[in-house]
Amino acid sequence: MSLRLFESLATTELLAEVFSDASLLASMLRFEVALARAEARVGVIPVAAADRIADAAVVDAFDPAAIARVARASGTIAIPLVERLTARVRAANPDGATFVHWGATSQDVSDTALVLCLVRARRILVADHERLASALRRLSDQHAGSVMLARTLLQPAPPITFGLKVAGWFGAVSRGGARVDSAFNDACVLQFGGASGTLAALGAHGLTVAEELARELELTNPDAPWHAHRDRLASLAGACGVYTGTLGKIARDVALLMQHEVGEVAEPGGASSTMPHKRNPAGCAIALAAAIRVPGLVSTFLSGMPQEHERGVGGWHAEAATIAAIVQATGAALAALADAIEALSVDAGRMRANIAATRGMVFAERAMTLLAPELGRDVASRLIARALDVTRREGHNFVETLAADAEVAAVLAHADLSSLGTPEAYLGAAEQLRRRLMNIERG
Amino acid sequence: MSLRLFESLATTELLAEVFSDASLLASMLRFEVALARAEARVGVIPVAAADRIADAAVVDAFDPAAIARVARASGTIAIPLVERLTARVRAANPDGATFVHWGATSQDVSDTALVLCLVRARRILVADHERLASALRRLSDQHAGSVMLARTLLQPAPPITFGLKVAGWFGAVSRGGARVDSAFNDACVLQFGGASGTLAALGAHGLTVAEELARELELTNPDAPWHAHRDRLASLAGACGVYTGTLGKIARDVALLMQHEVGEVAEPGGASSTMPHKRNPAGCAIALAAAIRVPGLVSTFLSGMPQEHERGVGGWHAEAATIAAIVQATGAALAALADAIEALSVDAGRMRANIAATRGMVFAERAMTLLAPELGRDVASRLIARALDVTRREGHNFVETLAADAEVAAVLAHADLSSLGTPEAYLGAAEQLRRRLMNIERG
Amino acid sequence: MSLRLFESLATTELLAEVFSDASLLASMLRFEVALARAEARVGVIPVAAADRIADAAVVDAFDPAAIARVARASGTIAIPLVERLTARVRAANPDGATFVHWGATSQDVSDTALVLCLVRARRILVADHERLASALRRLSDQHAGSVMLARTLLQPAPPITFGLKVAGWFGAVSRGGARVDSAFNDACVLQFGGASGTLAALGAHGLTVAEELARELELTNPDAPWHAHRDRLASLAGACGVYTGTLGKIARDVALLMQHEVGEVAEPGGASSTMPHKRNPAGCAIALAAAIRVPGLVSTFLSGMPQEHERGVGGWHAEAATIAAIVQATGAALAALADAIEALSVDAGRMRANIAATRGMVFAERAMTLLAPELGRDVASRLIARALDVTRREGHNFVETLAADAEVAAVLAHADLSSLGTPEAYLGAAEQLRRRLMNIERG
Amino acid sequence: MSLRLFESLATTELLAEVFSDASLLASMLRFEVALARAEARVGVIPVAAADRIADAAVVDAFDPAAIARVARASGTIAIPLVERLTARVRAANPDGATFVHWGATSQDVSDTALVLCLVRARRILVADHERLASALRRLSDQHAGSVMLARTLLQPAPPITFGLKVAGWFGAVSRGGARVDSAFNDACVLQFGGASGTLAALGAHGLTVAEELARELELTNPDAPWHAHRDRLASLAGACGVYTGTLGKIARDVALLMQHEVGEVAEPGGASSTMPHKRNPAGCAIALAAAIRVPGLVSTFLSGMPQEHERGVGGWHAEAATIAAIVQATGAALAALADAIEALSVDAGRMRANIAATRGMVFAERAMTLLAPELGRDVASRLIARALDVTRREGHNFVETLAADAEVAAVLAHADLSSLGTPEAYLGAAEQLRRRLMNIERG
Repeated sequence: MSLRLFESLATTELLAEVFSDASLLASMLRFEVALARAEARVGVIPVAAADRIADAAVVDAFDPAAIARVARASGTIAIPLVERLTARVRAANPDGATFVHWGATSQDVSDTALVLCLVRARRILVADHERLASALRRLSDQHAGSVMLARTLLQPAPPITFGLKVAGWFGAVSRGGARVDSAFNDACVLQFGGASGTLAALGAHGLTVAEELARELELTNPDAPWHAHRDRLASLAGACGVYTGTLGKIARDVALLMQHEVGEVAEPGGASSTMPHKRNPAGCAIALAAAIRVPGLVSTFLSGMPQEHERGVGGWHAEAATIAAIVQATGAALAALADAIEALSVDAGRMRANIAATRGMVFAERAMTLLAPELGRDVASRLIARALDVTRREGHNFVETLAADAEVAAVLAHADLSSLGTPEAYLGAAEQLRRRLMNIERG
Repeated sequence: MSLRLFESLATTELLAEVFSDASLLASMLRFEVALARAEARVGVIPVAAADRIADAAVVDAFDPAAIARVARASGTIAIPLVERLTARVRAANPDGATFVHWGATSQDVSDTALVLCLVRARRILVADHERLASALRRLSDQHAGSVMLARTLLQPAPPITFGLKVAGWFGAVSRGGARVDSAFNDACVLQFGGASGTLAALGAHGLTVAEELARELELTNPDAPWHAHRDRLASLAGACGVYTGTLGKIARDVALLMQHEVGEVAEPGGASSTMPHKRNPAGCAIALAAAIRVPGLVSTFLSGMPQEHERGVGGWHAEAATIAAIVQATGAALAALADAIEALSVDAGRMRANIAATRGMVFAERAMTLLAPELGRDVASRLIARALDVTRREGHNFVETLAADAEVAAVLAHADLSSLGTPEAYLGAAEQLRRRLMNIERG
Repeated sequence: MSLRLFESLATTELLAEVFSDASLLASMLRFEVALARAEARVGVIPVAAADRIADAAVVDAFDPAAIARVARASGTIAIPLVERLTARVRAANPDGATFVHWGATSQDVSDTALVLCLVRARRILVADHERLASALRRLSDQHAGSVMLARTLLQPAPPITFGLKVAGWFGAVSRGGARVDSAFNDACVLQFGGASGTLAALGAHGLTVAEELARELELTNPDAPWHAHRDRLASLAGACGVYTGTLGKIARDVALLMQHEVGEVAEPGGASSTMPHKRNPAGCAIALAAAIRVPGLVSTFLSGMPQEHERGVGGWHAEAATIAAIVQATGAALAALADAIEALSVDAGRMRANIAATRGMVFAERAMTLLAPELGRDVASRLIARALDVTRREGHNFVETLAADAEVAAVLAHADLSSLGTPEAYLGAAEQLRRRLMNIERG
Repeated sequence: MSLRLFESLATTELLAEVFSDASLLASMLRFEVALARAEARVGVIPVAAADRIADAAVVDAFDPAAIARVARASGTIAIPLVERLTARVRAANPDGATFVHWGATSQDVSDTALVLCLVRARRILVADHERLASALRRLSDQHAGSVMLARTLLQPAPPITFGLKVAGWFGAVSRGGARVDSAFNDACVLQFGGASGTLAALGAHGLTVAEELARELELTNPDAPWHAHRDRLASLAGACGVYTGTLGKIARDVALLMQHEVGEVAEPGGASSTMPHKRNPAGCAIALAAAIRVPGLVSTFLSGMPQEHERGVGGWHAEAATIAAIVQATGAALAALADAIEALSVDAGRMRANIAATRGMVFAERAMTLLAPELGRDVASRLIARALDVTRREGHNFVETLAADAEVAAVLAHADLSSLGTPEAYLGAAEQLRRRLMNIERG
């Protein structure tokens, strides 16, 4: 198992595997093998050496604990890995050992291995993103006509539809996913520059080897090595941060709607260790936890960007744990929220009942739009305030109270008054906006 | 003056003006006037009302201190502004007062006013970005042939050219500027949704008014109001964070190169209050300060994203100060670094001397690339380690020491040995990479 | 007015004044005057010079805009301030000008002026802290017997008292205030070290001048200058962060309890610009905004700590704006929350009604504690799950459903069953814990 | 192995073990056993049940992967752990199963288990802190007389001693360690409150059980359960952040002093994978990486503090991974820096040479203190500026240039002039301050 209990809510099984020791070692070895093959093809090293390196690059032959120990002394896991690989090649073929890691620097293998892990993680994130987006699309379509309270500053506001609310979630999820996707495109590029970023150890063959290496690894070859310029990874971190913020917003909405006192939706949720009656918003908790954790991690990544000269002291060393945590948290939030939304139960009756429970007061704004043009804002304000007072004090219904007011009745048609408290009559452009939001991906 | 001394290094005069009280009030009033005009054009309110609103919307008639005081009680500056505007219209024309802020909500005016300020800030950032990019381009071209030490983990590494180093800066600056630009495009959109985001108070005219309002303000009209979905602004914050990280990286490099012991470049810098001999990297200090401040501010913005339902409690309220600080810090860094780079003095002789001061040891890697294919990595390593030991112990030159070694001389041609310590002979693809980086904007 | 609209929710009038230009200039001039007086007393400079410096140190004679402009060129506001002060002294008395800022460095005046501002801010924070703590104490005592739902993961849990809930707030507020207080004690110390922190320019008199200067400014004189060691200020930032987190927790609780669907408490709050019926949790919004902003600001402060050698490049320059923002945000949260709690209205009836609305299901845990010892956990679980199912499906009351179960009635006494749904009968140690928490300050 | 390669620089072997699955499971089981024993002693559950629970609580019988999987569905690892423990007890003794986790809630076991891990981590941190403090003390004493340049904004300033510089490090390390220690004291307290924090399920025995449980676990019993009040842990996080900032400051200083061009100190460091000549500041890199990572993690912890009601959604769930990362990063920095400082080599000759390399210009401030009282600041400034110009232009020595100036010679005694460039003559209170700093722990 590659996931730790202390982080059980911070990743998923699939993502934990991507950032496991086995996966990282495999990625580093894949780099070294691809490098040797590329160099052999270009004629920089003997083909036989490349073959021996490929033979020796067997994940199970590498002891993560020993590598980690040396890494803390040397500041990088690349050095012990290369040493161990060299020793294995030497044991089989002393000549081949000469050409292990030929022309490369520690950062080439570390960064490219990280990128290879990111490529794998990306597929997992995309799958859960699509699952979430589909579930939101279905949910919005199903509830295009389900009226509910809008809530601003957690207080009731004039009605919307649940379909529109979900369409808002969908729009933000679509934008968020697109940004992450684009950032992965930019970030998933080869790192290969040798000691100083000039590929000098490869003489005239540097750029050709780089091209071959990129092809071998199915990565884009960027314009130049990016050793101390971490902006592409930083942008990926930022895009994950923005997306996770959106996932957290949705999770918070769901958790609030799931309160017993609100009761409008419920995710399948989890049980309690002690309270038999409870159903907890466990999926929302995981998504919100990610939305709380990722901003600080993004901040860390950005803080580490001012890296000294051609390879930094500390800034670079802070990255691996950080970007792995960011991507896993994003994926954990996506998976948990996709599960929650796919299985969300919605109580449209309770939504309507919660509007009714405001006893019409939520339509006070509407009353203002009807009365003010007739009576002027000041008179209208006075009449509405008076009706609200009476409504609150005596537990009446605002619409009826208002209708009973002679001053109001004198200027408002019966039809207007009778529909004043009808949610469907005060939805404005809700459905048009919902459709515009749902078309985002197609438009 | 709109800049405060406590933040004198955190902004520029131009940007401080953009985020000043006068500028914010003007933006809010511009929204209210444009709203009234759009509504009058669509026929939702009387043209005369729109005219009276425009007459009353005079920045100087609004007292920022009084507005701030009420804002703390109501949670938004929109409420006191609208009240004051209404009072001014009422004084001139009681009927007009009815139609101030008609159909809009506080967040519509606050968010759109923020966007209007961002549009202005963007122009300032773009101008300094272009100034910086041009200066970097010139500098890189001038020093395409100036050899210098690469430095990894602050230790000497095989040579690069200063032209390549600057091209790396240029590449990251170009990418950073492009990301900020794209994020401004996405973020600078109209906010207009009314109380619940449905434009219900405008009946059937909501979407038409929105179109007119966007045209009036020269802003894009998005697919829907974005009240509690803050991802577009968050992306802008993130892009500023990544860009500022790059500016901080360049500033750190310059400050390090400017150390007395290194002495390779100097920015014009600032004096000391007490030490007559000093020239401080003041521009770098401002850029680095921004690179330290912005990550935490980005984190704040992302943290505030999970906003409740249709308008959040706290998350939204944390944004204005945060985004204003981010944009100003980015601009302060840009301006300071553009000044520093434009006036940077470069000492190419000192660069070469610093290579020489490593007494050839920085070419040990090159020696390895020459010896290992002949002798195998293990023998080569032993010979080089021995020569390095002698060099260190006796203060010799590594290249000469190595050349004096009979085992080495037996396998290496005289030409190879004599050029082993020549920086120009070990630059690899430096110039090709430099050209690729400098073409980024054209490619 | 020293507060800006973009930050109107991020400070208070009193705190904005403390961090205003006038206040900062006054603090810097106070340092320069005190330094001159201390040096004159020790005999390092002429008494007449000290008098002339005191005469010239008139806040209004200094133009903040001009100082800020030079600050951006020199990296510090100290240099233009000292230059201007020197010019003013020189105009009156050329000899006196020699001794302005004698033996001090820019950082001495900047840091000590910051500390003097912090001393003033502290008093404001303490006053609001005491106001909040008193209000919480009263509230807890008043509602020692008001039963309400506990809520875990936003779902109903067995009852607590509102008195206990408020006592929990009080406990955390007391600990938070105590930590901030202690951190202010540590942080509010003199900075005085001269160019390199050795006071060398004062020859043998350095330590004596430092003692006199500290006395003059009523500040503690620390063991040594702390130029690049920022841990004391960082601890203050951290303590403010922890305290603001607690204030945010209370604000979130109040805002949630204030939801229309919950309706258990209400802060006086603010109006809406468009919805006449609304009362917004404006105080909570301000406190929560601070709780969202301060963590990122604390992160910034900590990130800036690794400052180079005896004075850093950038790390130090990032601090002033950051610490000022942290202290103001903390104070804004405190003031807003103290206002909200002092005027909080509590609906104990609604609290009890919300328990009742769970139809007894919230006592399922209690049923388990009664049944399990008799029947074993497995049988008890089955019976309770069955009763919960029936309760949910048929809209019954859980306690009655359970009591109607023959298996249950066989083992549970009538008395236990009849009190099963009585909140007061299942409060455990609530009142004892409440008293322990309320005694924190006395204990 | 419990450490992962992606985090190999982010922890140590000892700390990775403390936060391993085995350690966490053992801590959780220890809680459950201690709870059963405490309850049996008080008479709440049968002694036999407690014995059976103790028998079943065998770490190896619990599958971390299975627990993690369920944790993601239920939002907590406590639920699957308790279920598995209950199943094991039931298999041996069905009656005992009734009393597993009796009266406790998930958070009781999760939080207390975390605290038990922190208690273990604390011992490791304390040991490395003491190792570091001792090494610093020795180093400072050894180099009380080693003069070196002070450096402000990375530019040369008048001399200090390396002993004073190290004493400054020591002072900050002492303060930092003391703060962490005190925060551990506050944070390492029992969590035990049952479902709602009232211990209601234990009837009249709640507080007594809590006392016994605390004794059993050798933890302090706080005034009340702290379920949603996370300020004690947050303070620990903050204290670690401040301490790590100090460790980062020292590491940055060391890495800068270790630059080839400066060459004043060297840590044993690590090799390069490709450059045989290099010795990298690997220990500094690890400490600086921690100083970059921890601020963002602290920010996360603080951001998560506003937790809803009696147990939050997301805020709580974000904590475990965060606090574990903070403590491990702090410990990794401490261990790496203690290693580096213990083995630091110091080149006092190079320190003196670097002063000399400023050609006396670093004493310009001293010249000012000598000349200004005689000639006035303006004349003195002019003479010094002229001498600096000549020095820079002609490569002379500033002291000699100045001495050659007739105007200067007229007012300055030969003795003053001849000692002007002697570092030892311009150290001010360096040694007194060093002694004051080194006595911190005793004072």
